[in-house]
Amino acid sequence: MEGDPTLRLRVFDLNCWAIRYLSKRRQERIWLIGDMLCQEDFDLVLLQEVWSERDYSDLKVKLGGCYPFSHYFRSGVIGSGLCVFSRFPILDTLLYQYSLNGYPYMLQHGDWFCGKSVGLIIIKISGIIFNIYVTHLHAEYCREKDTYLPHRLVQTWELAQFIRHTSKAADVVLLGGDLNMHPEDVGIRLLRGWTGLQDAFSEATHFEGCEDGCTLVPNNCFTDKSELLPFPLGIRIDYILYKAISSFMVKCEELKTTTGAAPGMDVPFSDHEAVMATLHIQRRGQAAGAALATAEPMLADVVTEARTEVGVGLRAAQRQRYSSGRMALLALLLLLLQAMAALGALAGLDAGQPFPKLSFCLLAFLAIGILLLATGLHLFHTMEVKMLHSTEEQMRMVLQTLQERP
Amino acid sequence: MEGDPTLRLRVFDLNCWAIRYLSKRRQERIWLIGDMLCQEDFDLVLLQEVWSERDYSDLKVKLGGCYPFSHYFRSGVIGSGLCVFSRFPILDTLLYQYSLNGYPYMLQHGDWFCGKSVGLIIIKISGIIFNIYVTHLHAEYCREKDTYLPHRLVQTWELAQFIRHTSKAADVVLLGGDLNMHPEDVGIRLLRGWTGLQDAFSEATHFEGCEDGCTLVPNNCFTDKSELLPFPLGIRIDYILYKAISSFMVKCEELKTTTGAAPGMDVPFSDHEAVMATLHIQRRGQAAGAALATAEPMLADVVTEARTEVGVGLRAAQRQRYSSGRMALLALLLLLLQAMAALGALAGLDAGQPFPKLSFCLLAFLAIGILLLATGLHLFHTMEVKMLHSTEEQMRMVLQTLQERP
Repeated sequence: MEGDPTLRLRVFDLNCWAIRYLSKRRQERIWLIGDMLCQEDFDLVLLQEVWSERDYSDLKVKLGGCYPFSHYFRSGVIGSGLCVFSRFPILDTLLYQYSLNGYPYMLQHGDWFCGKSVGLIIIKISGIIFNIYVTHLHAEYCREKDTYLPHRLVQTWELAQFIRHTSKAADVVLLGGDLNMHPEDVGIRLLRGWTGLQDAFSEATHFEGCEDGCTLVPNNCFTDKSELLPFPLGIRIDYILYKAISSFMVKCEELKTTTGAAPGMDVPFSDHEAVMATLHIQRRGQAAGAALATAEPMLADVVTEARTEVGVGLRAAQRQRYSSGRMALLALLLLLLQAMAALGALAGLDAGQPFPKLSFCLLAFLAIGILLLATGLHLFHTMEVKMLHSTEEQMRMVLQTLQERP
Repeated sequence: MEGDPTLRLRVFDLNCWAIRYLSKRRQERIWLIGDMLCQEDFDLVLLQEVWSERDYSDLKVKLGGCYPFSHYFRSGVIGSGLCVFSRFPILDTLLYQYSLNGYPYMLQHGDWFCGKSVGLIIIKISGIIFNIYVTHLHAEYCREKDTYLPHRLVQTWELAQFIRHTSKAADVVLLGGDLNMHPEDVGIRLLRGWTGLQDAFSEATHFEGCEDGCTLVPNNCFTDKSELLPFPLGIRIDYILYKAISSFMVKCEELKTTTGAAPGMDVPFSDHEAVMATLHIQRRGQAAGAALATAEPMLADVVTEARTEVGVGLRAAQRQRYSSGRMALLALLLLLLQAMAALGALAGLDAGQPFPKLSFCLLAFLAIGILLLATGLHLFHTMEVKMLHSTEEQMRMVLQTLQERP
């Protein structure tokens, strides 16, 4: 077995920032990405933020020769933005849409409309089964007061659970995507600790690219410089993570990132830098047991930390559910009062018209509007509470199991 | 290996019809179900329509002695209604919420608010790993013109894919639940064909209960007799399905259903009959390959049939997306016209007031209302189109693979 040849796998990962009508020089960049992918001989290409199916189709036509197999994951109103191109046949696919993904009324952020998900494709190379996951988690719009942290942690938890449950028959697990979390953030520690995935950047024998492996850098002409002020080198939020199960071994020989503008061009591929890993996969003599990357007492600490944050989100959601419910009730009361007044006037009980007709009607419409809106919000926050509660409960169960172990 | 002792597993499945404020004699029935479960020695209890967490908590307290392990799956506004009680420790859980589940505006049906899902629990008995799934699919309100069929087929497909992807390391797979489909319906054939699951009713050596294994029978005092008129014996829509993977063998020794009122009582447990299976699990000498229950050419026919129905749903959803988009546009146009007229009046361009103020305001409010409603509908149907399209595409890929095989 030790004599088995090593399989070399080249993986490309990029958040393409291809939002129709909004992203700058979108079509030109999609064209450039296609050109570069044709020239380079990657085995697997994992893309995010390809929001338009038209862009995917254009890429598919262009890459048909070098990457004959591909899959686009549809979800939400706009789409998940996730797609995969592969040199090897895609045997099966599955999509898991995260149960929480921001708020529909936060139109300026818009994550809710994307139906953020994790996509799984299964490929087999030289008899080795690869489970390839691609994902994009909720963005972080304000690091100091990150109101989306609980949602992102629920997504991280669901991502980790989805990987654990679907990868049991895989030989190699690979996850690529924009996780919108810094390497030391609780979410990354939770994901890595609970799945046993390794970070290609930390493990790479050879690295070339932006300092510290950053993928959102001030050098890139599309990034918002003011947002990156606290991080002069930039931040690392795009990852390639991997692990080998059963009797295989994966080593990251080389990791590269792009560094702003594409070579010989004045425009970068995206506002994110691409991550490119060269992995070596080899069969090993003795099968290793399923190992967690983080020692169990440390893992318990990470789960506790994540659970605390989810708990904070749960209490906020409960407060919002309560306020919206109260608001709906008040609007309903106002409507009932108005109905009684109108009936009274019709029955001739009133001496005179207490309100001018116009104001009366405007008030009624306002009350109906508030009632509908507040009811919608109440329903939404009820769902939010359910999912946060459920995640907190699952984390509690895991903690119990971890603590019960000798 | 052949000498290994046989493991006997007794499984109970019931749609409890426990809707707060709506289901008749709910608390009394939950009490009765709890009593009966305490008396009988089932190993696993799979319940649906336990919508209230309070009912679950009451059951949990009551069953704590005989079924010390349990899990409640939370989702949607009301909840998934799914829960499991077990004599054996629950090692892990996962919930998958179906991407389509009816329409939020069909308030009289209300399925949308339940966040219909499939729940997975993993247990280990005598070293054998069991993946236990519990689910409840969208109801069928009118068999002649079943507008929910495409959604139910998307759910069935997602259920089958979820089982296939998460059960690869399991020794035995077990699915219980209210599938809201008759045994010969395309959905059941698709589920069984694509997962290889076997129907406990068809496989049972010994059967006792309602004729043809029906679980919604005219004899039950809670069922709607008029709905069952075309089916004098009743219908079978609640199932226990199973399969063994790797080197195990499952046999259904006995299948029973309840038959209306509980023994010695005037009230049945629910409007559905419970399904109770006794399974025998034995290790076999030689591992069998992963087999599909349906021969491949037949499976291709079933997938084609299901895909056609999903296609019908897709076209209907596209029409609804178009109409709601057009309606939103018309409302927007009306608002713009009104805004221009109002601005004109303010600038003194108009000779007189073309409308009385009250009608003008009422019209504006009406236009705003229609705009909001139509936009919401348009977004919803856009998501619906995406998911139907995605399922149709996946089925097309599977068909291609099935047809390419020699």
